[in-house]
Amino acid sequence: MSVDPLPRRRGSRRKTQHRKEIKPAIWPGLEGGAYKPLSEADMGRIHASALDILADIGMGGTIPVIVEAARGKGLNLDSDGRLRFPRSFTEDIIANACHSFTLRAIDEKHNIDLGGAKVHFSAAGEAVSMLDFHSGKYRPSTLLDIYDTARLVDTLDNVHRYGNVLVPTDIEDLREFALNRTYATLAATGKLLGLTVMKPEYFDDVIAMLDMIVGSEGDYLKSPFGLIGACPVISPLTYGEDSAALICEATCRGIPTMSVIAGQAGATAPASLAGALAQNTAETLASLIMVNLIRPGHPMIFGNWPFVSDLRTGSFSGGSGEEAVLAAAAVQMGKFYNLPRSVGAGMTDSKVPDAQAGYEKGLTIGLAANTGANLIMESCGMTASLLGASLESMVIDNEILGNVLRSVRGIEINDETLNLGVIREAVNGAGHYLGAAQTLELMHSEYVYPELADRSSPEDWQDEGSLDMQQRAREKAQQILTSHFPAYIPPDSDQKIRERFPIRLDRQEMKAGSSRWCQKNR
Amino acid sequence: MSVDPLPRRRGSRRKTQHRKEIKPAIWPGLEGGAYKPLSEADMGRIHASALDILADIGMGGTIPVIVEAARGKGLNLDSDGRLRFPRSFTEDIIANACHSFTLRAIDEKHNIDLGGAKVHFSAAGEAVSMLDFHSGKYRPSTLLDIYDTARLVDTLDNVHRYGNVLVPTDIEDLREFALNRTYATLAATGKLLGLTVMKPEYFDDVIAMLDMIVGSEGDYLKSPFGLIGACPVISPLTYGEDSAALICEATCRGIPTMSVIAGQAGATAPASLAGALAQNTAETLASLIMVNLIRPGHPMIFGNWPFVSDLRTGSFSGGSGEEAVLAAAAVQMGKFYNLPRSVGAGMTDSKVPDAQAGYEKGLTIGLAANTGANLIMESCGMTASLLGASLESMVIDNEILGNVLRSVRGIEINDETLNLGVIREAVNGAGHYLGAAQTLELMHSEYVYPELADRSSPEDWQDEGSLDMQQRAREKAQQILTSHFPAYIPPDSDQKIRERFPIRLDRQEMKAGSSRWCQKNR
Repeated sequence: MSVDPLPRRRGSRRKTQHRKEIKPAIWPGLEGGAYKPLSEADMGRIHASALDILADIGMGGTIPVIVEAARGKGLNLDSDGRLRFPRSFTEDIIANACHSFTLRAIDEKHNIDLGGAKVHFSAAGEAVSMLDFHSGKYRPSTLLDIYDTARLVDTLDNVHRYGNVLVPTDIEDLREFALNRTYATLAATGKLLGLTVMKPEYFDDVIAMLDMIVGSEGDYLKSPFGLIGACPVISPLTYGEDSAALICEATCRGIPTMSVIAGQAGATAPASLAGALAQNTAETLASLIMVNLIRPGHPMIFGNWPFVSDLRTGSFSGGSGEEAVLAAAAVQMGKFYNLPRSVGAGMTDSKVPDAQAGYEKGLTIGLAANTGANLIMESCGMTASLLGASLESMVIDNEILGNVLRSVRGIEINDETLNLGVIREAVNGAGHYLGAAQTLELMHSEYVYPELADRSSPEDWQDEGSLDMQQRAREKAQQILTSHFPAYIPPDSDQKIRERFPIRLDRQEMKAGSSRWCQKNR
Repeated sequence: MSVDPLPRRRGSRRKTQHRKEIKPAIWPGLEGGAYKPLSEADMGRIHASALDILADIGMGGTIPVIVEAARGKGLNLDSDGRLRFPRSFTEDIIANACHSFTLRAIDEKHNIDLGGAKVHFSAAGEAVSMLDFHSGKYRPSTLLDIYDTARLVDTLDNVHRYGNVLVPTDIEDLREFALNRTYATLAATGKLLGLTVMKPEYFDDVIAMLDMIVGSEGDYLKSPFGLIGACPVISPLTYGEDSAALICEATCRGIPTMSVIAGQAGATAPASLAGALAQNTAETLASLIMVNLIRPGHPMIFGNWPFVSDLRTGSFSGGSGEEAVLAAAAVQMGKFYNLPRSVGAGMTDSKVPDAQAGYEKGLTIGLAANTGANLIMESCGMTASLLGASLESMVIDNEILGNVLRSVRGIEINDETLNLGVIREAVNGAGHYLGAAQTLELMHSEYVYPELADRSSPEDWQDEGSLDMQQRAREKAQQILTSHFPAYIPPDSDQKIRERFPIRLDRQEMKAGSSRWCQKNR
């Protein structure tokens, strides 16, 4: 409700400060923290266990760069080939780590502050298949799917980052994978989170491409946007050579990193949720140690993401109640350490955006956000326990995230919101609050209005064709994909990039979205 | 995992205490309380506001029984016809109210303790229409629907109570409505929560019918099961004559009550969530005062259920993020007062059990439960902002409630769950936890296995027909309704009841479920 000031008259004493901005009801970075499944004592015990694990069992799979950095601190490999970290050493690393930083986007307006208990959402998931929009069947995901999902997310208000939803299964060569996924996502969204590099030796190429976009050689590293995310630990308690090397190289070059540790309770982590949390916290600390040995204080997101198994099959289950509470507890541990933290949530096991997908996402994302995760990953578009993604889901999940953000905002209790005069007036006057001044004033700042969620009467709903959420989401996804063709890569940069690198998406194909998405619905 | 003790040998010192029961992963009455959207200071301010409202604005619509009881305590109607309660008076009422009680069921195994932060779920909602199982269209709900929904709930493990999901729109006469709904629900489920009486003058008849079921005249009131629920306040701040009289009469007769207060923010309550919470808390306290004036310490469930509007239309929106956080905050106020408390959650605005229904239920129920509501009402089967109900939704919601309960249980942190020996063994041995002793032992006590939620691979899911949750739920609902015909009313009681009261459900019709539900699916 924009309230225009009355026209200012000469000599009038009227103040002009009456113009009120329309305050939105939700915004990125709302503070979470109201949900605390672990007590302070519980967190103290998990912390103590994690320190014990690193000191007594230690880490295997140590690669030269880590061994060398550790030796500089007086730590040597034990005779069993494991690196053990004394408790006080780990505590010092935590104390001196980076506790908050601004995660830059190529478009400054999407910069976000990671720290405190500020909550943001990111699409992500590295799925290898796509629920085909037209056939309704799963098929391998392609580079073109990546471009399309990224431009879809570019328009979704409550999805603050695009963090690599899909693997381009149509590209085998890893260098081409890295260059093309980075290109396709940068072309499509100003919200890019994760750069794709794949191997340390491709950093030069990817950075050269980024330099061409932001200016000239050397410009990208002056103030890098995005981050390098990887899983540098293979559970239980082993550094993973390739991913650890990638995180180390990004760290050396000053690019922010996100170490994601996803030990799976009952498979690669203890079946007891407490044990899984302790091991996973230890492993995430091991990656924090790695990064801080190489570059003390380097910005790293603490990706403590314990997963759970369905023990009937041993498979990962992303939508369970166990996952909901375990992920939230892991966020609490990141908060306990006051480290910028991410977690995976919204990883439904359902194959389609149905009721199951809805409740699994509502519960897992709702609890993770209310615990105060700084970045909630995998929270837009994922299906099939992270094996798949769906365009309808992306559009639906944007609305879930709006609802969740509203709950995170909480209830402001103060003299203005508790104004008893408003109640007295309604009781003595109209007998209700419809049309009251406070009601009109708060209409947009207190309430979120979903675009797709149906709030009509049963009669109106039937008159309008009895559509469900998935059907409405299809229409919206189609409408966006036939109209939103952003150009985040300037034409001259684009030309230079195409001359130097094997870019697979041709301009015609990128623009052909209108026809590609106009095909008949299933 | 039941572990049988080894056979005891004569003279053996082996102890026989090794038999381990299979502990379930979830159970009724798990303690919530980990979610706290309001700080202690916030709750103190809401409390102070509620006291101010009752002292300064007071209650209108006072009926003789309330006025008389108040006069006994030295409180008189003010000249404006309103009854104002001094702050210390209200505080004394809260201090001396019933703080916990056992809510009895006709079947003792379903008795539940309401107190602390123990969490239970109840179907309920008083919908006037039914999403027809066969046509997929909404139609007015009937007595037969009530019988069917109650026997469905009777089989759903995570739905602990059946609390009147539907209005029998095919019965106009209120006495027949009361007798028939009570009969239909008692016949169908051992989990009945809410008796139906409708008007104080029908108590004698309904109690006579209950006496015939539990024994002979006078037996029901010796240890009454169920409760009388009603909305004794019309917001803002007015006692509602009919419903208040009903609650008062139940109180006089010693039957537990649930006063549900559902002022709607932006319509019958302030648009500011804080103001709506303060008014609603005051109104729920006003009903607590009413009950305790009549019978100090009488068991009453504090039904502080603030609702919100979609201010574009003025309609109630049950599935919004605003509702999720407001309901949770209202639960916190009941906890602040240490009163047995209920709240409505799961009141999706969607017309069908789709993704929207799923996420709205997952978030609202998840937060309410984790706040520690003793009874979460409307949490099974409701659709269309409480205007409708759906059989598929009931079956789906049972699985939602299982997931939510698992999150409420939280994570037990102790020497056993944190056993580092388990981790050391995996690291030094197999390299994983599949098949480890702890994994096998915890398989059923740590993890919930859903019956309908799909966790298969995309390939298997496609091979099995690409069914969504709604389709799987249809099959399960149909299977239950063609096979579950409980007989909670003994045949001889049934005969006597039918001789004395106009029971509309005939025995043939009740048993005809098998054919009724075998009709072709839509």
